[in-house]
Amino acid sequence: MPETPQIVTFGWVPEFARGFVRDIRPRWACEEVGQPYEAVLIRDAKTPEHRRLQPFGQVPAWRDGEVEMFESGAIVLHICEKAGKLIPADPAARSRAIQWLVAALNSVEPFVMALAVNDLFEADRPWSATRHDKVVEDLNGRLADLENALGDKQWFDGDEFTVGDLMMVSVLGGLRGTGTLDRFPRLAAYVARGEGRPAHRKAMADHLATFDTPVAA
Amino acid sequence: MPETPQIVTFGWVPEFARGFVRDIRPRWACEEVGQPYEAVLIRDAKTPEHRRLQPFGQVPAWRDGEVEMFESGAIVLHICEKAGKLIPADPAARSRAIQWLVAALNSVEPFVMALAVNDLFEADRPWSATRHDKVVEDLNGRLADLENALGDKQWFDGDEFTVGDLMMVSVLGGLRGTGTLDRFPRLAAYVARGEGRPAHRKAMADHLATFDTPVAA
Ligand SMILES: N[C@@H](CCC(=O)N[C@@H](CS)C(=O)NCC(=O)O)C(=O)O
Ligand SMILES: N[C@@H](CCC(=O)N[C@@H](CS)C(=O)NCC(=O)O)C(=O)O
Repeated sequence: MPETPQIVTFGWVPEFARGFVRDIRPRWACEEVGQPYEAVLIRDAKTPEHRRLQPFGQVPAWRDGEVEMFESGAIVLHICEKAGKLIPADPAARSRAIQWLVAALNSVEPFVMALAVNDLFEADRPWSATRHDKVVEDLNGRLADLENALGDKQWFDGDEFTVGDLMMVSVLGGLRGTGTLDRFPRLAAYVARGEGRPAHRKAMADHLATFDTPVAA
Repeated sequence: MPETPQIVTFGWVPEFARGFVRDIRPRWACEEVGQPYEAVLIRDAKTPEHRRLQPFGQVPAWRDGEVEMFESGAIVLHICEKAGKLIPADPAARSRAIQWLVAALNSVEPFVMALAVNDLFEADRPWSATRHDKVVEDLNGRLADLENALGDKQWFDGDEFTVGDLMMVSVLGGLRGTGTLDRFPRLAAYVARGEGRPAHRKAMADHLATFDTPVAA
């Protein structure tokens, strides 16, 4: 196991995916808590070696002196728990921070992904155009509820930015470029607040810089 | 806040949903760790009162002497953490248990739900029949990877049943009746193992018994 923690991710992705790959999540968590890490860049995630680390042949994966693991949501929790940061010490606030992380992954991301799947990955399928409105309607319903839950608060549990906000901002960031958040000004401002944090800016810059340099095979 | 923890869930659901509502997850966790609870049965989850507990107007929600929260995944983690059970004490094993819980919620459940959405909730839409094969293909791909990751192990991290298995069994249980797992005998046996645990049987029986008695309005 390596001394410096490693984030295993793609050294190359097509233009449209840049800024969206989920290695940004552990990168961001590391920057927030002050955890140094190394990015290990791979070209192909479907190899048997990589699948031992990430059974679905995806990125990111994580390795540190303690554990090898996958799932951006779990990696981010692991990083924050080790550091004792972004997870409040108060037990109720702790449970709510984890609740918002799970909500981002299980109640919001599936709707965000459904739009990407329909409009991008299934764009050439016969149903894509007809189905589009239904996908948008479901997503908008979910976002309306989410915006109501945020209300006028700065972060989902109030004034303190937690691991739950990190994940929610990242999931909603998946809508960048779709115009979806134009109808949800408070959510849009929330995402801008999250993405404007120095730790996010640094993580995103490092993620994007990856694609400036060629990958070893 | 109540002394005995409460699981807020539906007192009535249509026939096809019985045995599938996510209140089974916290019920199961409570049975596994020996935590008594009370089921609070509601008829309508879209009321303003309920939305203060569950912003998307869904079930389950949870209340105990410490916290009010939603998201079955987060509630289950909360129950297990409080009890110090189903989450291994060893830090690496702990992180992997949480990894499998997140994998169930974020890498597997969206594919399981996609099938239910297409074949059930969108059955009357013009694309449902045409799109069915693609949805099944994506789901099968995911399950093949998952079965490989399980290998010949009893549970995902080896011999110890964790909160990650509880969630994975519950998510895969969503395929009951679809025949999907017939092609994945090791996953099917894994689900049967999980659902055969006394705590699951009790939770499922209590869930189903709910619908034998009329609900107060
Ligand atoms: N639930 C996983 C999702 C991982 C995921 O979808 N990774 C994408 C990049 S953001 C990927 O590797 N895609 C390539 C593929 O699926 O073949 C996580 O959050 O870590
Ligand atoms: N991510 C949520 C999902 C909750 C959910 O989908 N609940 C369903 C019952 S299993 C529900 O309340 N459906 C009614 C509705 O969506 O209107 C969780 O795991 O708690």
